Amino acid sequence: MSAPANVGVVGLAAMGASLARNLARHGNAVAIYNRHYSRTEKLMEEYGDEGAFYPAKTVKEFVDLLERPRTAIIMVKAGSATDAVINELAEYMEPGDIIVDGGNAYFKDTIRRERELRAKGLHFVGMGVSGGEEGALLGPSMMPGGSDESWERLKPILESIAAKATDGEPCVMHVGENGAGHFVKMVHNGIEYADMQLIAESYDIMRRGLNMTPDEIGGVFESWNKTDLDSYLIEITAEVLHKKDPRTGKPLVDVIVDHAGMKGTGTWTVQTALELGVPVTGIAEAVFARGLSDQNVLREMAQQNPFAGPDGHIDLGDLSREEFIGQIRNALYASKIIAYAQGFNEISVAARTYGWNIDMAHLARIWRAGCIIRAQFLDRISEAFESGQADVSLLFAPYFKSGIEHSEADWRSVVATSAKSGLPAPVFSSSLAYFDGLRAKRLPAALTQGQRDLFGAHTYGRVDMPGAYHILWATPEQNEVKISD
Amino acid sequence: MSAPANVGVVGLAAMGASLARNLARHGNAVAIYNRHYSRTEKLMEEYGDEGAFYPAKTVKEFVDLLERPRTAIIMVKAGSATDAVINELAEYMEPGDIIVDGGNAYFKDTIRRERELRAKGLHFVGMGVSGGEEGALLGPSMMPGGSDESWERLKPILESIAAKATDGEPCVMHVGENGAGHFVKMVHNGIEYADMQLIAESYDIMRRGLNMTPDEIGGVFESWNKTDLDSYLIEITAEVLHKKDPRTGKPLVDVIVDHAGMKGTGTWTVQTALELGVPVTGIAEAVFARGLSDQNVLREMAQQNPFAGPDGHIDLGDLSREEFIGQIRNALYASKIIAYAQGFNEISVAARTYGWNIDMAHLARIWRAGCIIRAQFLDRISEAFESGQADVSLLFAPYFKSGIEHSEADWRSVVATSAKSGLPAPVFSSSLAYFDGLRAKRLPAALTQGQRDLFGAHTYGRVDMPGAYHILWATPEQNEVKISD
Repeated sequence: MSAPANVGVVGLAAMGASLARNLARHGNAVAIYNRHYSRTEKLMEEYGDEGAFYPAKTVKEFVDLLERPRTAIIMVKAGSATDAVINELAEYMEPGDIIVDGGNAYFKDTIRRERELRAKGLHFVGMGVSGGEEGALLGPSMMPGGSDESWERLKPILESIAAKATDGEPCVMHVGENGAGHFVKMVHNGIEYADMQLIAESYDIMRRGLNMTPDEIGGVFESWNKTDLDSYLIEITAEVLHKKDPRTGKPLVDVIVDHAGMKGTGTWTVQTALELGVPVTGIAEAVFARGLSDQNVLREMAQQNPFAGPDGHIDLGDLSREEFIGQIRNALYASKIIAYAQGFNEISVAARTYGWNIDMAHLARIWRAGCIIRAQFLDRISEAFESGQADVSLLFAPYFKSGIEHSEADWRSVVATSAKSGLPAPVFSSSLAYFDGLRAKRLPAALTQGQRDLFGAHTYGRVDMPGAYHILWATPEQNEVKISD
Repeated sequence: MSAPANVGVVGLAAMGASLARNLARHGNAVAIYNRHYSRTEKLMEEYGDEGAFYPAKTVKEFVDLLERPRTAIIMVKAGSATDAVINELAEYMEPGDIIVDGGNAYFKDTIRRERELRAKGLHFVGMGVSGGEEGALLGPSMMPGGSDESWERLKPILESIAAKATDGEPCVMHVGENGAGHFVKMVHNGIEYADMQLIAESYDIMRRGLNMTPDEIGGVFESWNKTDLDSYLIEITAEVLHKKDPRTGKPLVDVIVDHAGMKGTGTWTVQTALELGVPVTGIAEAVFARGLSDQNVLREMAQQNPFAGPDGHIDLGDLSREEFIGQIRNALYASKIIAYAQGFNEISVAARTYGWNIDMAHLARIWRAGCIIRAQFLDRISEAFESGQADVSLLFAPYFKSGIEHSEADWRSVVATSAKSGLPAPVFSSSLAYFDGLRAKRLPAALTQGQRDLFGAHTYGRVDMPGAYHILWATPEQNEVKISD
């Protein structure tokens, strides 16, 4: 039997099946394989007429269906399942073949796998895929990391199935070597956490603080979607808030248990940022907020033994409700800029650390469509990197700097009002604290460092001369000694 | 030659030398070994008359000096140096011997090492040691984790050199198996980060917000040290703030470069909390604040391109300066309770995860002296755990609950005022957001979960019946389907 397929997909759960169909719909001849053949049969039955599918019952059969050099995309659960599939494929594949992992792998696993497969002459590409099941079918944003050679061959296939931005540019790029693709996908998800938590805080302030209905708040988000905040997440927020529970007719959001789940990429983003020494306060607070929402015992105990304190109602004083809603919008906008600036910082530092040459302007462009954080805003981010104005931080690009400055007073007002009213606004307030820390001429870190020198002889630098110094705190004279140049 | 030493110390840098001297001063016969013999000679020359030291030139000599079953304490750099020393020791040691690692090892390394050495019949004890060089010499707080058998033999030795609380209790306990000791030491350090950042924020608000001098602020901390805040860190804050630069006569804190360093345990505390799903917002913000202080390029750029915004000066309105200082004190106190509650939560969850039986009341007691976070406050924490009132969270123990409720209005005022004045208060505000999140009857996490169901089919729970549900968002009817029970 000849090898009819120019690409193959292993793993036909929701994401894998959608991607395989997307490939077939765009003229690719697609070999498909799933551990349980029933899923393969189901895909053939339901969608077999959408294009050229070549079902395989075994991994060997699958590999034999692929024309050489082969291209196989794995869409299985991250972790040991991925390793198992890679090992099976590698057994039958030959030097020059490409294995693409389109799952949500941890980028360090991708670095390891690429190294191991390279030793066997195989190309391994770790590819972030965003957009969920619908994106995978209709056009995802894809972030492949791997060798130049593998990109040359993947490019036409991936560009054919990628989401297209409004200017027609496909939302896929060669991010960098080995783990670069999975790394930026991880940070994409981290930013998504912050974005969603900012929306949640805005909603909470309107709901509990201003006693607005979900419908009314949905209307506010619709109106915000016509401003610089225009984005997929704001759009679906309005949709969710307008949605009525099919069972009771109540607003759906009131029927949903208020525990937010998570799958790990937000956590990884923060853990990795800590390792790299990059503050990502907004993403961290968003991850913790989801964690807190899920602490049943703690929250139940707090209902049984309520703390005295304000009930969340906001006293607007001289402000009209519309004015305060405008303030919330600006707080959201400014905090969002901070979250993106922090996320892009994490990518910059990782690129230096891992030797990836990532085109940040291009990266922002491939997030304009297909993915969860898609937004017009990303055009501005792309321009900022293009012009070199965002090299140190997005915050210094004039568009974002003036965006923050115009929102700043409102942002402060919302943080202050939330604090006084008893409404939790962890990402609003943490983003503001980051901003005020960043712009401070002197930080109290000098005191921290003085304490560290006192109890741990950790030394300190002096503002007036180079070197590291230590006070002999335990001696009566408490003289200073120079420890190093 | 017979084996004269009942204990040995490997690694004679600052901490190891101090611990060896502490042991000798308390009647132990101490074998000592250092990779470079010059350090061993130096210790013998300077302090040889403090007690019975037995210097060794080689590891074999060192092991031979120890009476059987042997007890060797390693005080070397965490990481590969520790592994190297363990391997050398294990080569000469025999079943039943004990190796204690007194460095700041990552607890998962300790778990691995214990398992490896147990296979060889050796006891491995991972021991957190707090108190710095001075503590190691005069009495540290020690947190050993390992087998019951090793604890039986270590107990008299460690109790002889431990710090003693005011009631005479030695600050050492058997924390639990394998990595338990290094785990709690890690969290101790994380709490220390939060504590220090809270002090830094209080200082900054007084310094920049109220234009007070370091001397004046030192006086405030002295007065606070006579309240429930009585602690080593508050005490040394006053000392650092009163200290004049020996070179210029200016306040030392004004001469120190405002970049706070860190050595990794704070970072580990947050990374591990993320892994365990425990929100430790205060510790995370403290770690990020140190990280931000050290971002030279970013901070320099912000000075060259200053953002418009308030300069930090606080408009007190009707409040007197003394009243506002009282508010800062209460904000510090409430935030500190939150940070400790979060840290103890992390320990509880880890104990369940790793099968450690940790006596939390006892743990709080051994932190009352010898370590950096030592404070009277820990007596109250111990009582809270003793009484069972802190099982879910320290916040529910009546002493701390009423402490927060009495401080709460002031805390809100300080967070609001900082936000409006442009003063970064990340731990004050993040702790307040955690508190308000914890006490909220409904969180906006319901909206987050609704969004997740829309874009990722992640399902949601219903408040009115069990099960996991999903809306078929993409269909015209948008009906709800039950996904699982």
